[in-house]
Amino acid sequence: MEQASLCDLNEPLIDHAEGQFFLSEAFKIIMEEVLSNGTDVKQKVCEWKEPEELALLLDLGVRETGEPRDKLLQRVRDVAKYSIKTSHPHFFNQQYGGVDYHSLAGRFLTEALNTNLFTYEVAPVFVLMENEVLRALRQLVGWTEGDGIFCPGGSTSNMYAMNLARYQCFPEVKSKGVWALPRLSIFTSPESHYSVKKGAAFLGIGLDNVIFVKVDDRGRLIPEDLDEKIELSKSQGAVPFLVSCISGTTVQGVFDPLDHIADICDKHKLWMHVDACWGGSVLFSKKHRHLMKGVDRANSVAWNPHKMLVAGLQCSALLLKDTTNLLKQCHSANATYLFQQDKFYDVNLDIGDKSVQCSRKVDCLKLWLMWKAVGSVGLEERVDKAFIHARYLVEQMKKREGFQLLSMVAPVIKERMMKQGTMMVGYQPLGNKVNFFRATVFSPLLSQKDMDFFLDEIERLGKDL
Amino acid sequence: MEQASLCDLNEPLIDHAEGQFFLSEAFKIIMEEVLSNGTDVKQKVCEWKEPEELALLLDLGVRETGEPRDKLLQRVRDVAKYSIKTSHPHFFNQQYGGVDYHSLAGRFLTEALNTNLFTYEVAPVFVLMENEVLRALRQLVGWTEGDGIFCPGGSTSNMYAMNLARYQCFPEVKSKGVWALPRLSIFTSPESHYSVKKGAAFLGIGLDNVIFVKVDDRGRLIPEDLDEKIELSKSQGAVPFLVSCISGTTVQGVFDPLDHIADICDKHKLWMHVDACWGGSVLFSKKHRHLMKGVDRANSVAWNPHKMLVAGLQCSALLLKDTTNLLKQCHSANATYLFQQDKFYDVNLDIGDKSVQCSRKVDCLKLWLMWKAVGSVGLEERVDKAFIHARYLVEQMKKREGFQLLSMVAPVIKERMMKQGTMMVGYQPLGNKVNFFRATVFSPLLSQKDMDFFLDEIERLGKDL
Ligand SMILES: Cc1ncc(COP(=O)(O)O)c(C=O)c1O
Ligand SMILES: Cc1ncc(COP(=O)(O)O)c(C=O)c1O
Repeated sequence: MEQASLCDLNEPLIDHAEGQFFLSEAFKIIMEEVLSNGTDVKQKVCEWKEPEELALLLDLGVRETGEPRDKLLQRVRDVAKYSIKTSHPHFFNQQYGGVDYHSLAGRFLTEALNTNLFTYEVAPVFVLMENEVLRALRQLVGWTEGDGIFCPGGSTSNMYAMNLARYQCFPEVKSKGVWALPRLSIFTSPESHYSVKKGAAFLGIGLDNVIFVKVDDRGRLIPEDLDEKIELSKSQGAVPFLVSCISGTTVQGVFDPLDHIADICDKHKLWMHVDACWGGSVLFSKKHRHLMKGVDRANSVAWNPHKMLVAGLQCSALLLKDTTNLLKQCHSANATYLFQQDKFYDVNLDIGDKSVQCSRKVDCLKLWLMWKAVGSVGLEERVDKAFIHARYLVEQMKKREGFQLLSMVAPVIKERMMKQGTMMVGYQPLGNKVNFFRATVFSPLLSQKDMDFFLDEIERLGKDL
Repeated sequence: MEQASLCDLNEPLIDHAEGQFFLSEAFKIIMEEVLSNGTDVKQKVCEWKEPEELALLLDLGVRETGEPRDKLLQRVRDVAKYSIKTSHPHFFNQQYGGVDYHSLAGRFLTEALNTNLFTYEVAPVFVLMENEVLRALRQLVGWTEGDGIFCPGGSTSNMYAMNLARYQCFPEVKSKGVWALPRLSIFTSPESHYSVKKGAAFLGIGLDNVIFVKVDDRGRLIPEDLDEKIELSKSQGAVPFLVSCISGTTVQGVFDPLDHIADICDKHKLWMHVDACWGGSVLFSKKHRHLMKGVDRANSVAWNPHKMLVAGLQCSALLLKDTTNLLKQCHSANATYLFQQDKFYDVNLDIGDKSVQCSRKVDCLKLWLMWKAVGSVGLEERVDKAFIHARYLVEQMKKREGFQLLSMVAPVIKERMMKQGTMMVGYQPLGNKVNFFRATVFSPLLSQKDMDFFLDEIERLGKDL
């Protein structure tokens, strides 16, 4: 047995020529199906199939033996065909529609290089690049110094902030756990993203210790109520440690009044975190950055370039004002197999121990290449245009007879649009109101006619209801 | 102002023709630099530069204005040039060397489709595909039912297991936090991956509550000592809840005796987690799967196809035996904007709430496509060959005069190999022994002559020391 296989030992199991040919063919299919047809307004956004039917069509089961090239290429085509075209101009469904080709080139390069952001040794280019991108993002926040890291999503960035805030108040939590601490409390708006709750549960703080502060009629956190809730929590024996503010709520895009919140955080000496996952990109815009006035007073900011900037999933930066190496102290485990101290270069470049991950994907290259390609000015233009589209949409809706922002019939319209494949937009209830459509319109692929299409199409799909 | 920009509102900000041309050119560079030159034994593994020099060469700073196409393509080339060639046959440095072209095609397609694994609505293909891949992996573990999810890395998978184990014992932790619980304790081998410690710290359990169990002279956890340590911990007032065993330790590739550990877990009713991030792939091999005998008795298994199977970063599966929807109950936040209950399809397909992430990358397609391409038999062959290479290396080392597994001179040899760019391999101390080299030799690109090269090169680089 062993003898037999020994003959092959001088040959690798991978045939580069065949592999590279396959990859080239797959690339052509991607270009055609995903990037050309997939962004063509005359084509469908989705090719709806019921789950059972789709499973059959895709023949998903894996088997003992492999398949020939042509069959595999057909599989690539099928996956593309039945997947949602998130770059299609009529995909208004979520905060990651659209495509940027420079970013995409960066993503392909990232995948091909397949490296890991833990040491300078294995990721020399990306250690320096992440550093630079974080610096540039911090500069937009208004910080000349600081720290930061890219995380696998904004939820993780928000969690990191929570863990850092906790560690700064009570460093003993790392060794002794939460038992060594008084009961902690976190303050946020009821409009904040659910990751605040998920984070509190995951970190052992508990949902009950996330306290919702009142919002005004536009959905902005009320600083006076924050102050009161903090006092109340203290009087109930808890130790407030974190306020998680929000710049750009998930559903309505509301910006909390950061400056006023900062005053309250100062008064009570609390960690101020800004979840700017969705809204952070307004910092590129001279016209709209006032929405985040006071952000420089925060301790941490979470910002997802994979949302408004279309950098591609995943791309989320956690930015810190801290200059004391808190991130590393809080998360480090000092593994000797990666972070040897007797290396021949500056081991401060081995940033991996700042993360609670071990393998960490390179998420900075795509953003960097896109930024190099269009400049800060180009990104500003995208943000400004998104605001114009949004305003236009609201104005037009007001003008159209019978068109309401809130709609009882959203689920039906949604089903129709998906089955016809003409458009995708999310709906949801808001507070105790009925369902409404939440259209995200920031993609740089959009033009005004897509706004008109959106309105016409909702009318068309719902006209008999 | 607003008037001026309104003129452009009928045009998108992205030029598809130019973008697609750029992407095609970038693809050519990737093919040439990363996949052809980067895997050519006659070329260097790395082009070492000191950090200051590299930063200058790359001109990393982002600016106000964008750059022309040619300059950007040169940047793509530079990033490729100065990055480590992790697919090079002489990259023995970490557990993710090598390349599989089918997987890479899957990764390009994933990036182009840029979707998010939270609902069937936006990821119909991938919801079903992840399901199928998890099923197939569970089958190799020996489970006909169960649950699971792909996580951004094995560290996260290990953390999830910890959170699930805790939640199963004490569901009140989710709302009340750790304060409502008795002090918990976790048991693992001192050879286990540092993510167990990082996880305990992050989840508020604390490093001190991770108890190291003795290992035998081969590094395998000793079940009798586990039993004693559990009793001791109880007598000290803690509540043991989790044993984190390991199949394939990071440094030496040791497999804990799962069957015996399962007996102890049964006796004390503890959650048994198997960190098979590195070793899990032996389950494909009829010859080596005995190393994980007893794995089917575990409650959870973490398995990283991005390691031994070369699926590409990131690809880590958490597999669960549970059939009670524990994962979703533990992690859900029931956000109404994503997980509406009045949808027109089976909302059980909206798997996003099983995760503590919100956006979640599609990590299954690359593994699925590779698996379809080579079949289980092809993956088995890769695993078997890796074992043969490893054994050959050890045998040859014993034969070579003056060649020692442990070496005082590792840091010097390492520096020389990096600066000459001929090879990359990690080194580290082990226990109280001095540094040794840890060569990972599982890549399907490797052949026996690469093993010989490894030995010759270490000799050459160290001959004057
Ligand atoms: C305001 C806000 N914060 C955080 C997140 C979470 O980011 P991610 O999806 O990257 O985890 C979202 C996602 O929708 C969000 O809208
Ligand atoms: C045994 C073991 N478990 C877990 C991990 C962590 O996996 P990841 O790097 O994907 O976080 C590693 C990584 O080296 C490992 O070797």
